[in-house]
Amino acid sequence: MALKGKKKGILERLDGGEVVIGDGGYVMALERRGYVTAGHWTPEAAVEHPEAVRQLHREFLRAGADVMQTFTFYCSDDKLGISGRVGSISGQQINEAACDLAREVANEGGTLVAGAISQTPCYTDSTSEGKVKEIFKKQLDVFMQKDIDFFIAEFFQHVEEAEWAVQVLVSSGKPVGATLCISPEGDQNRVSPGDCAVRLAKAGASMVGVNCHLDPTCGLKTVRKMKDGLEAAGVKVHLMLQPLGFNTPECNHGGYLTLPEFPLALESRAMTRWDMHKYAREAYDLGIRYIGGCCGFEPYHIRALAEELAPERGFLPPGSEKHGLWGSALIGHQLPWVKEKANRKYWETLLPASGRPKCPSMAIPHESF
Amino acid sequence: MALKGKKKGILERLDGGEVVIGDGGYVMALERRGYVTAGHWTPEAAVEHPEAVRQLHREFLRAGADVMQTFTFYCSDDKLGISGRVGSISGQQINEAACDLAREVANEGGTLVAGAISQTPCYTDSTSEGKVKEIFKKQLDVFMQKDIDFFIAEFFQHVEEAEWAVQVLVSSGKPVGATLCISPEGDQNRVSPGDCAVRLAKAGASMVGVNCHLDPTCGLKTVRKMKDGLEAAGVKVHLMLQPLGFNTPECNHGGYLTLPEFPLALESRAMTRWDMHKYAREAYDLGIRYIGGCCGFEPYHIRALAEELAPERGFLPPGSEKHGLWGSALIGHQLPWVKEKANRKYWETLLPASGRPKCPSMAIPHESF
Amino acid sequence: MALKGKKKGILERLDGGEVVIGDGGYVMALERRGYVTAGHWTPEAAVEHPEAVRQLHREFLRAGADVMQTFTFYCSDDKLGISGRVGSISGQQINEAACDLAREVANEGGTLVAGAISQTPCYTDSTSEGKVKEIFKKQLDVFMQKDIDFFIAEFFQHVEEAEWAVQVLVSSGKPVGATLCISPEGDQNRVSPGDCAVRLAKAGASMVGVNCHLDPTCGLKTVRKMKDGLEAAGVKVHLMLQPLGFNTPECNHGGYLTLPEFPLALESRAMTRWDMHKYAREAYDLGIRYIGGCCGFEPYHIRALAEELAPERGFLPPGSEKHGLWGSALIGHQLPWVKEKANRKYWETLLPASGRPKCPSMAIPHESF
Amino acid sequence: MALKGKKKGILERLDGGEVVIGDGGYVMALERRGYVTAGHWTPEAAVEHPEAVRQLHREFLRAGADVMQTFTFYCSDDKLGISGRVGSISGQQINEAACDLAREVANEGGTLVAGAISQTPCYTDSTSEGKVKEIFKKQLDVFMQKDIDFFIAEFFQHVEEAEWAVQVLVSSGKPVGATLCISPEGDQNRVSPGDCAVRLAKAGASMVGVNCHLDPTCGLKTVRKMKDGLEAAGVKVHLMLQPLGFNTPECNHGGYLTLPEFPLALESRAMTRWDMHKYAREAYDLGIRYIGGCCGFEPYHIRALAEELAPERGFLPPGSEKHGLWGSALIGHQLPWVKEKANRKYWETLLPASGRPKCPSMAIPHESF
Repeated sequence: MALKGKKKGILERLDGGEVVIGDGGYVMALERRGYVTAGHWTPEAAVEHPEAVRQLHREFLRAGADVMQTFTFYCSDDKLGISGRVGSISGQQINEAACDLAREVANEGGTLVAGAISQTPCYTDSTSEGKVKEIFKKQLDVFMQKDIDFFIAEFFQHVEEAEWAVQVLVSSGKPVGATLCISPEGDQNRVSPGDCAVRLAKAGASMVGVNCHLDPTCGLKTVRKMKDGLEAAGVKVHLMLQPLGFNTPECNHGGYLTLPEFPLALESRAMTRWDMHKYAREAYDLGIRYIGGCCGFEPYHIRALAEELAPERGFLPPGSEKHGLWGSALIGHQLPWVKEKANRKYWETLLPASGRPKCPSMAIPHESF
Repeated sequence: MALKGKKKGILERLDGGEVVIGDGGYVMALERRGYVTAGHWTPEAAVEHPEAVRQLHREFLRAGADVMQTFTFYCSDDKLGISGRVGSISGQQINEAACDLAREVANEGGTLVAGAISQTPCYTDSTSEGKVKEIFKKQLDVFMQKDIDFFIAEFFQHVEEAEWAVQVLVSSGKPVGATLCISPEGDQNRVSPGDCAVRLAKAGASMVGVNCHLDPTCGLKTVRKMKDGLEAAGVKVHLMLQPLGFNTPECNHGGYLTLPEFPLALESRAMTRWDMHKYAREAYDLGIRYIGGCCGFEPYHIRALAEELAPERGFLPPGSEKHGLWGSALIGHQLPWVKEKANRKYWETLLPASGRPKCPSMAIPHESF
Repeated sequence: MALKGKKKGILERLDGGEVVIGDGGYVMALERRGYVTAGHWTPEAAVEHPEAVRQLHREFLRAGADVMQTFTFYCSDDKLGISGRVGSISGQQINEAACDLAREVANEGGTLVAGAISQTPCYTDSTSEGKVKEIFKKQLDVFMQKDIDFFIAEFFQHVEEAEWAVQVLVSSGKPVGATLCISPEGDQNRVSPGDCAVRLAKAGASMVGVNCHLDPTCGLKTVRKMKDGLEAAGVKVHLMLQPLGFNTPECNHGGYLTLPEFPLALESRAMTRWDMHKYAREAYDLGIRYIGGCCGFEPYHIRALAEELAPERGFLPPGSEKHGLWGSALIGHQLPWVKEKANRKYWETLLPASGRPKCPSMAIPHESF
Repeated sequence: MALKGKKKGILERLDGGEVVIGDGGYVMALERRGYVTAGHWTPEAAVEHPEAVRQLHREFLRAGADVMQTFTFYCSDDKLGISGRVGSISGQQINEAACDLAREVANEGGTLVAGAISQTPCYTDSTSEGKVKEIFKKQLDVFMQKDIDFFIAEFFQHVEEAEWAVQVLVSSGKPVGATLCISPEGDQNRVSPGDCAVRLAKAGASMVGVNCHLDPTCGLKTVRKMKDGLEAAGVKVHLMLQPLGFNTPECNHGGYLTLPEFPLALESRAMTRWDMHKYAREAYDLGIRYIGGCCGFEPYHIRALAEELAPERGFLPPGSEKHGLWGSALIGHQLPWVKEKANRKYWETLLPASGRPKCPSMAIPHESF
């Protein structure tokens, strides 16, 4: 994986028609590993337990991710303050540490580092453009000092706040991606996906799409509407998708936040690697070229994206050395009926059982907000 | 967590009435992290990617595990040879590296190191006591050189092979635990759980029980039968349980090996942390004092065991600093209906949905072997 | 229930704002009673086993139906011929016998008789307006001779054929209702529900709507679209709905014909009486005033419609003497926990289990035609 | 079906090795038809609506039942009094009318009439042998006057009360069958199925078994235990089974009375005709020769029993003229994928969906009594 010479930038790759594989969800994976608290989901582990964050970066790298997103979710000072979780650690310290970790691992594999910022409580409380932009500007300064490769503004429920973020970030001269956590119905104010996409593009984003909140099926629907909106407006940007790794077919506009299982009992909704093959293919077919994951995506889910799109990308990820495509490594199993599963058709058509006969297959979501 | 003076040994702890929390499942967790190949499940990552194994050890430590099991599953030369996965790496190298990793992390937390050995293909092929014992002896030598604290012979489908393993291991003078991967119907030859337990105790095991293959509910049934058998025979040993972290209510004698989802689509069967509270309590109530997990147990599952039994143990694990008991950290969530989930009753009574309406809740297992 | 004087006609009732309760599904109920063959579903039992047909009429009457539909489903000569089921019995004989049975029972309760005709194989084979109309004309002649009160043209997949039927039937001077078995996507040629409704109204139907093929939820969606289309076109007719009594949430355009369970294993999809309360209320709220059922509606389902709408109608059906509203008769049960079910909230919020853990909750329907 | 000469009696048939098909459940079928009130389930419809009872008898006859059970469930004076449902109608009137109806239809088909009596509230209240036997004696007198062919004492939760019933009934000189509504755990006092069967046989019953309360799978388990008990005791009687037509896999000792769905939302638990084929075959293979149904058995379920056992019995029931074996009549369907269902394998392996994704597959039963 050692790359000679200068790495290609994100836009160079996308403009050149490459498929870029994103990484998976850090906060939820690290919650399960014992380093993040569910609720505020703040990233102080970048300072407190760098080895855990570094290892997760490495696993996503090994799985085939072309980008290391800095572990800086909800890392604005206002959010950290509210969380009551960070003690004397400052937002700046976390952002710096997170940049260093992402860069360290990125360098091991020739991948890019994306500085990630997300929505702020300040927006909801004040809706003051000045205050909110100041918060983003402060984060931007750290990222610029650490020379990240590009930016991702993600997990925005209001397109307006995302626009502000993009406006701040593009001032850096670096490429900016922007993904909203919205449903096919649109953002929190029901601005349609098409209009959201056009506004983000006009604000300066080079990559536009959706992350978190809903499953791939639903995320694909929303991005399709974004695509249609962009085409209708004659605006050209790259499409991104980083959805949940959980099945949420019954979710309404409010996304998985409205599920009874959120956030501490989502296990039986987890998607398989085979579900990810399907998602990767459908995303590719829709024209999305930045394809990653969010909460629920573990390293092997990212590997499945890279394996599905290996024909297009021309190579398998390093982690595939410990994985047979479509279960082919099972050929060595001692039990004949397990051996027989070493093929694509088996896994592609399997309808996995939950082992929970007293549980429903769909929940009744909380009313959407 | 820094401990002064000499660590208490496993038997000292158990004889003193302490609850010992085991660690979780290494091979399946590392498969999902990209370091183990499903099928033969061999542990060469101890040599190839020590950082990944070390990190998982740390997470189990942080979750409250009192024991680091060496990452030496299926690490006998015959099995490694068949797997075709290890290239020029020898079993001895893996066993050594695994001992070092377990010891390194154990020292960070004052926990014990258990040298783990498991069933061999040699037994099935030859059923030669001499040959099989020789294989165990070879592993024993490495473990003794590395001065592990005690032994666990685990994942044996035939009580006879487990007896041989125990006989070899007790020759070391170290305490030996022995767990079978059997159903309430007994071992592969339908030797009853009660008889199995008595035989293992008579062979010299100080701790006897069940691991892998079936879910906690089923594991508890089998251990209950072991307990009855031991009592009937007037034999006294400690009870151990390290079951699957997957719901397998419909499994027959063959365990999860007979499920259509095994091994690459088990996601929707994954148990929640709340299921683990229930398991820990029931195991404790049954008199089991070595309570851990096997495949499917991620660090947060182990933490749930430690949290449930914190009143008995007198302390919470380090990882609980990033977790509110029974979801109490959700009190800080911005959404009112998520806030309301910050209580035990909510999570204890929740019936989580799978999000998979086209899938059944129980599979039709393959006929048992 | 004996009524003095002249019965009010169907339009008098609907124009006067009354709610008219339709009857349930004859062919499927009589299949289960042993008198109809699944497949061609022809009504020769009107001649062969009049007592069985009469009894089912009586049960629907007793359940509160205001209309007895003649048991003349698929009773055109071309369909009867293809079925190979009727031997020497002619279509005319069946139509006559069916009219007599409906009239006999209608007279016991002061209800109306609706002569029912349905789609013909001739339409699919020839699409000859002349031939198809001739078939309808032949049925019309019998119905006129027997002096039925009004007509229902039902179970048409193509709006064109339904238009032809309406055109023939209105020539009689009797009121005509027309219901299509279509999805919200429209008829077989994807003519939209709104356009279908307008065309049927223009052809002369006084009541327009949907029957069979999909469940109440879906039927309500389609009728809502019909209503919108009618309003947009400024056309005024009454709305009708007689949906399936089976849950079919996953069905596509092809309706329950595309389900794996169709037609001989639909049991676990059967709706409860409580589901019917919900349906009746929603249909009423949408402005539908002819509310009945089709396949899967047993007498107690019709009774539930009449019970839900008793406040609007001003009376309970005769069959309610053997039924407590919302389970109130359970107050007399000897078991305390059954007694406690004698209330609306219990039944309204119950999520009934299937007792079939190896079965999915949604099937994969056959591709739509 | 007209039979010449004297009908063979029940014991003549069973002793001769014939398979006797019982009829289905009257009270629940008639509740859905509008003639019985759920809760006390009393049979006053025999007097009030004889046509409805007669028609259901006919349908069971047509389905292949060899026995018409009198519609006299819970028809003891004490139960009728408590029910508050019968007004001025006396138990004697109902019993007489029910005998007449059963005889009338039996004569149409050459079948036998079984006088049916069931458990009394008097037993639970007084446990006075004298009083309880007096109640049975009073019913016996009507049955003897109407010259029924044999007796069935059914739906007894306590073997003691059933013994008393048998003792009274055998005094008539007619053959007596006795079925308990118990689980594999035994009767209400946990008298084992084996002991129950032996006691009933010793009391004079010639046929012994189980009815109602649990599904065929469970009923078969209980009868198997009865059989083992009888064999161990060296007692020879015929075995009977008339289970529920609902799937109740999760039920405990208390049977379907403990299900949340009991009694007014059991729809999705209903068994298919194909389930009944399986049940009939398993019952036959276990050596049961009186095979029928109870609550939930509609006429077509009984027909399925008769069709499955047609090879053994040598004939199909009359109702099969409207049914192709294993769906063969679907060969005439116009849709190609429905045509393809005209075979045994399709229906035998189908796993029918419920269409209810928000409902579980197993309920949590009320604690057993």
